[in-house]
Amino acid sequence: MVDIQNEKDERAVPLQKVGVKGVQYPITVLDRANGTQVTTGTANLFVNLPHHFKGTHMSRFIEVFHEYHGDLSMKRFLAMLEEIRVNLEAERAFGRLSFPFFIEKEAPVSRQKGMMRYDCSYEGAVWGPGGKLAKDSVVDTKTTSQLENQKTSKGHSFFITVKVPVTTLCPCSKAISDYGAHNQRGIVTVKVCYSSFFWIEDLVTLIEKSASAPVYSVLKRQDEKFVTEQAYENPRFVEDLVREVYLGLKEMPLEKPFKWFSVQAENFESIHNHSAWAYTEYEG
Amino acid sequence: MVDIQNEKDERAVPLQKVGVKGVQYPITVLDRANGTQVTTGTANLFVNLPHHFKGTHMSRFIEVFHEYHGDLSMKRFLAMLEEIRVNLEAERAFGRLSFPFFIEKEAPVSRQKGMMRYDCSYEGAVWGPGGKLAKDSVVDTKTTSQLENQKTSKGHSFFITVKVPVTTLCPCSKAISDYGAHNQRGIVTVKVCYSSFFWIEDLVTLIEKSASAPVYSVLKRQDEKFVTEQAYENPRFVEDLVREVYLGLKEMPLEKPFKWFSVQAENFESIHNHSAWAYTEYEG
Amino acid sequence: MVDIQNEKDERAVPLQKVGVKGVQYPITVLDRANGTQVTTGTANLFVNLPHHFKGTHMSRFIEVFHEYHGDLSMKRFLAMLEEIRVNLEAERAFGRLSFPFFIEKEAPVSRQKGMMRYDCSYEGAVWGPGGKLAKDSVVDTKTTSQLENQKTSKGHSFFITVKVPVTTLCPCSKAISDYGAHNQRGIVTVKVCYSSFFWIEDLVTLIEKSASAPVYSVLKRQDEKFVTEQAYENPRFVEDLVREVYLGLKEMPLEKPFKWFSVQAENFESIHNHSAWAYTEYEG
Amino acid sequence: MVDIQNEKDERAVPLQKVGVKGVQYPITVLDRANGTQVTTGTANLFVNLPHHFKGTHMSRFIEVFHEYHGDLSMKRFLAMLEEIRVNLEAERAFGRLSFPFFIEKEAPVSRQKGMMRYDCSYEGAVWGPGGKLAKDSVVDTKTTSQLENQKTSKGHSFFITVKVPVTTLCPCSKAISDYGAHNQRGIVTVKVCYSSFFWIEDLVTLIEKSASAPVYSVLKRQDEKFVTEQAYENPRFVEDLVREVYLGLKEMPLEKPFKWFSVQAENFESIHNHSAWAYTEYEG
Repeated sequence: MVDIQNEKDERAVPLQKVGVKGVQYPITVLDRANGTQVTTGTANLFVNLPHHFKGTHMSRFIEVFHEYHGDLSMKRFLAMLEEIRVNLEAERAFGRLSFPFFIEKEAPVSRQKGMMRYDCSYEGAVWGPGGKLAKDSVVDTKTTSQLENQKTSKGHSFFITVKVPVTTLCPCSKAISDYGAHNQRGIVTVKVCYSSFFWIEDLVTLIEKSASAPVYSVLKRQDEKFVTEQAYENPRFVEDLVREVYLGLKEMPLEKPFKWFSVQAENFESIHNHSAWAYTEYEG
Repeated sequence: MVDIQNEKDERAVPLQKVGVKGVQYPITVLDRANGTQVTTGTANLFVNLPHHFKGTHMSRFIEVFHEYHGDLSMKRFLAMLEEIRVNLEAERAFGRLSFPFFIEKEAPVSRQKGMMRYDCSYEGAVWGPGGKLAKDSVVDTKTTSQLENQKTSKGHSFFITVKVPVTTLCPCSKAISDYGAHNQRGIVTVKVCYSSFFWIEDLVTLIEKSASAPVYSVLKRQDEKFVTEQAYENPRFVEDLVREVYLGLKEMPLEKPFKWFSVQAENFESIHNHSAWAYTEYEG
Repeated sequence: MVDIQNEKDERAVPLQKVGVKGVQYPITVLDRANGTQVTTGTANLFVNLPHHFKGTHMSRFIEVFHEYHGDLSMKRFLAMLEEIRVNLEAERAFGRLSFPFFIEKEAPVSRQKGMMRYDCSYEGAVWGPGGKLAKDSVVDTKTTSQLENQKTSKGHSFFITVKVPVTTLCPCSKAISDYGAHNQRGIVTVKVCYSSFFWIEDLVTLIEKSASAPVYSVLKRQDEKFVTEQAYENPRFVEDLVREVYLGLKEMPLEKPFKWFSVQAENFESIHNHSAWAYTEYEG
Repeated sequence: MVDIQNEKDERAVPLQKVGVKGVQYPITVLDRANGTQVTTGTANLFVNLPHHFKGTHMSRFIEVFHEYHGDLSMKRFLAMLEEIRVNLEAERAFGRLSFPFFIEKEAPVSRQKGMMRYDCSYEGAVWGPGGKLAKDSVVDTKTTSQLENQKTSKGHSFFITVKVPVTTLCPCSKAISDYGAHNQRGIVTVKVCYSSFFWIEDLVTLIEKSASAPVYSVLKRQDEKFVTEQAYENPRFVEDLVREVYLGLKEMPLEKPFKWFSVQAENFESIHNHSAWAYTEYEG
């Protein structure tokens, strides 16, 4: 049977990335409370394609992912990318894996339990000895200032993103109004460059503490009173929220501190039909 | 050239609806302030297919829609469905057309102007003399109690839906807290069975008046103080919001009152990561 | 602490449904190959609210769901709705639970294994002795002709929906072209009224057999040749696909046959930027 | 009235971007056939915020956008960003504006006319004399290798993105199968760094010529035969498609050639439930 993909291509156009997108699988990740957690993931998996090859072999991405989906802790994710790189005979491999992560959380007064969902993703790249790193080497053309410094002969980059819904109460609205203050659900997105092991649960806690108040699945009346007053006492612009999380990430107790991270916050404004948004980036 | 669609089908399975979905077009609708408004529409267009035909002729839906897209006032929408029914030689034709509708709106104190977007849709059915009306005869399997009473020999049904973002402030949170009250963006969806001409703009106004406060595109500080206090003075559960809109729709000054409508409200709760929701229906 | 929700409402507007929407939780469902399967669900949970009550108690929905999420087989879903109805002191309770369901599937020639995702949902209603059934009694205003016949003094309705991606190849394009035929991914949505136990896996198999060819996660070259030729030998309009599935469902070996079902198919046409769509409904 | 946003911030955390997201407006852009085209836009507008300011003034973004929405040709978009930068007293301003763009297109044989929708966006940044350009200076943290070379004392960057749906037919499937070949809808996304004026319509034509066949809104039977055979005669992997568009963009007749562009193609595979994807980037 002919192998069209293996044919020689004469157009001299190298492809930075080629692969599969939107592959949906059950996956297992680490969970501090329960050891592991089964959740549902969506994966994009790519390699570079040298200019003289006509096409890549798409089925091999799925074959490797199938092997790994039962254990996709942070370390295993990079091992999977390296196996993809080798199996596809490529210089570089890239991957993004998005998944909801669930944590059981107690209401602040009644201690009623409910599950909270936090959308997370892994995003990584691995390269071999001859794999000179292109500027675009993180999946989906996202920037990474970190990578510029890593043009070593063999290496990898690895980013983890966590999205946390919170309550924000507007400092301006509180200050200028005789009573009340507009508040709303917001979402904080933190992306860190992996330096040493950490728990997703700790990132979530840090972010929730930086907001006007956390959000919960279950709140009884005594809890609702508590979070209403907590938010009123802790007004936060998106700008404040991003700065508080930034300071918290810099001081987070880790084996090795984060060398790069970004923080963004989006408020689904209760007085507008659009969002307020703020973004900052740290590079150590 | 053979016409496979016209071939006889022996399986004896009639199809209630067959057609095209997700057709995207620029369209023109009526606008009280400016006469007409150009916006972007998405159309689903169907007919019934008797059991002895193998397939329908999909291109004819687009041909008729192409003729009408430059003027899709409410009346023209039904005329378009009737032309589709006749061209496709069907007993019944169905259509849904969704589009954003824009209204320029002034801030309450500063009078600064901004555009607001309201998602709207038309949803209709037409049937010919022999077209006994099936229970499912509104597009996309949505219910309509109205239709049950309209099994006339020739006829039509027509529904208009308008979605309006608003601010809601929680009465419980206000009552039990020493200060503050959680509030959030909500969205009210009203669907009415067309009885006589009305302006979408009037439905929007009625809905905004029923909320804790309207939302705006531009608010200067004096406006923000105004809406913050307005919301605090007018706490509303989703249940209250739906009831206020219900009462307003019943009393709306129209040539002929609405014989059927539904009202739903969804609050993107600022203290939860899920929504509170309420629904009611009126049949005159 | 005051209980605003319990206050008397004088507006005389009953609410058919009130509750929570978009609640996201890990859930466990039945799986023929492995006993159970952990996946991620999104729930909408409602009750009716008599006109004399001001509001419902939203936290109770989550409390009951939290108890049940570790085992949400079909039967347990109805038991959960009944518990919600009783806890909320309502005449009727409604629920929809959407979740991806995964099945390991082998490529047709190479027998390579990959996971396939099928989006499913449960949709149900329960009512108590005094709970006269409204026309709109399925969640989210979806129609159900079935319910009309079930105005018994106490009862329930239960629907299961399964969405299956498939390949369809156009019979017209094949017949009129000298070579080739346009084909595309399509999605078939089957909704059945529960009559007796069945496996989701069996619905999936029936639907895949009705298409031009199934879709797979992993296909090696010998598999790709197989499915390409299989699709070319089995051209199917959306109309054909819907009729084949309809006939299959009528004859499905079950303890009790389905009394009601609907079948729809949507083709993401490769020659258009819109979909072709067909719908049929059966009532026994 | 106090101005909280103007207060001094002591946390020493500069914010690269702060502003509004998801602002929805009717907008007017250039159209080769008709002079101008009214469509519906979604805007994200940001500025940088020096570390000593507490917050930005969100209403000013909307005020400026409101002035410009009636004429948002490419040049006016940059003028709008500069006006935002000056009004917000910032060193840098950023904007993204996404909108559907419609072109009337004739079927290849019957010459039937239909409208096609192409999703487009403008993405730009402007900076003042003292505005040292950060690495992240394109909105939403997207990469741009181009910008690295533009750290001039005052300047701007400007990118235009166009998404074009096409048909692709698999070369491998055609080569290994006795008859038929799988094909599907794909979408090509081209992003160019603006160098001199061009028509969006010309980018669309170039992309459609690079595919196995274009897609259309209306196709009569003679047209369907034509595009089926055209696609079978022109098999294209996503890799081929990206390379053909890359070569076309390099040779596009322009006053000044593009100095940077990227091309990506995503195939909604008819034999899988995931996509095949390829990406390349050019820097002159």
